Amino acid sequence: MSNGKLILMRHGESEWNASNQFTGWQDVDLTEKGRAEAVRGGELLVENDLLPDVLYTSLLRRAITTANLALDEADRHWIPVVRDWRLNERHYGALQGLNKAETKEKYGDEQFMKWRRSYDTPPPAIDPDDEYSQTGDPRYDGIAVPLTECLQDVVMRLIPYYNETIAADLRAGKTVLVAAHGNSLRALVKHLDGISDEDIAELNIPTGNPLVYELDEDLRPITPGGRYLDPEAAAAGAAAVAAQGSK
Amino acid sequence: MSNGKLILMRHGESEWNASNQFTGWQDVDLTEKGRAEAVRGGELLVENDLLPDVLYTSLLRRAITTANLALDEADRHWIPVVRDWRLNERHYGALQGLNKAETKEKYGDEQFMKWRRSYDTPPPAIDPDDEYSQTGDPRYDGIAVPLTECLQDVVMRLIPYYNETIAADLRAGKTVLVAAHGNSLRALVKHLDGISDEDIAELNIPTGNPLVYELDEDLRPITPGGRYLDPEAAAAGAAAVAAQGSK
Repeated sequence: MSNGKLILMRHGESEWNASNQFTGWQDVDLTEKGRAEAVRGGELLVENDLLPDVLYTSLLRRAITTANLALDEADRHWIPVVRDWRLNERHYGALQGLNKAETKEKYGDEQFMKWRRSYDTPPPAIDPDDEYSQTGDPRYDGIAVPLTECLQDVVMRLIPYYNETIAADLRAGKTVLVAAHGNSLRALVKHLDGISDEDIAELNIPTGNPLVYELDEDLRPITPGGRYLDPEAAAAGAAAVAAQGSK
Repeated sequence: MSNGKLILMRHGESEWNASNQFTGWQDVDLTEKGRAEAVRGGELLVENDLLPDVLYTSLLRRAITTANLALDEADRHWIPVVRDWRLNERHYGALQGLNKAETKEKYGDEQFMKWRRSYDTPPPAIDPDDEYSQTGDPRYDGIAVPLTECLQDVVMRLIPYYNETIAADLRAGKTVLVAAHGNSLRALVKHLDGISDEDIAELNIPTGNPLVYELDEDLRPITPGGRYLDPEAAAAGAAAVAAQGSK
């Protein structure tokens, strides 16, 4: 049996993408544009004959709703669903809720980019009593809710989970849809493509555009970097992510 | 540990509810009214402090979308999800797609009510090649897709599944939401309340109105018949279901 296919989909535009705020684990909704991106993602799955057999999502509404809309459009609303906090976005610590442009102006370009793209330096921790902290949220009962995370922290929580669950489905020949977030997908792509701790800083993942990996026997990408189903929109989308912080 | 609570929710109004057609396993969408009913169902869960820990749905869009909308409204979009064909609506055989009023006029009141409410007499089987047959639908790979079902057939497929899965979650103290269909929920209520094969003919379940059962140690209802969260709408809704077939 040949290996399955892995489809990564970052959620469509969220309310805080639109207002240029650091989101992290804050559970914001999609915008109308984000909902349209999700539906378009479902159309692209159909057009490319990539019908998922199983869905993995984070515990955050913007990823869950993106998957629901895309799968409904692709007539695959009935597939099994697995939700896990380890697919959540990177926790953005005390930056959660702050405007990106204001933060960049206040702290300067260098600090701003370090918080956004440093592999192993997390932003300052959020106060557990802050309105944007997730401490005490019932969906995280039984886990130590982070107060901040760097990308390395995301790799450390996500890749063991990937190896135990998603990789097993891929070995069984399934087409797996992972609906998640900019930084949890960067962590996964880093692992798949063997990107260095330095080079991962340059990688940006656009919203709502399915990224497909076909994998060899060792679950290594046959085409490094995978393939966006809408390459033109992906290039524009990645540039837009890179430019965040500009007003 | 006390037993959990069981919340049964029939999907909101579907396109074929609105056009008065027999639906069965045909995978029709909700109407706008049906979507509003689903959201209202989610509000009722919040108002009554009944927040589900786990969701069970059929493999049909109208139940899946109802649950998605209700749980999103109740801020419980992140709970685990289990989907299973055994929660599907009764297969309506060769009646699937037919208008209920025309069918009643053509075959007469007695035959019409027998097809709708007989416990053990199924409608005529659908031709597997009929446009409204589900034979060959990939979501049912590995199961023998029925060509027709009576309510007894639904009981036979659903209750063993309930005992193995949902009942175990209830014994573990969970609040369980089951998003399903008029006849699969009638089968479950028949089992829970110990309703006879004859008396079940009179029971109608309204759309989009959560029906809550609190259960004793033997998972028998503490209050027979459970409790609708909107009793007034439930009475009107059940009367409307009973009157189907009238023009």
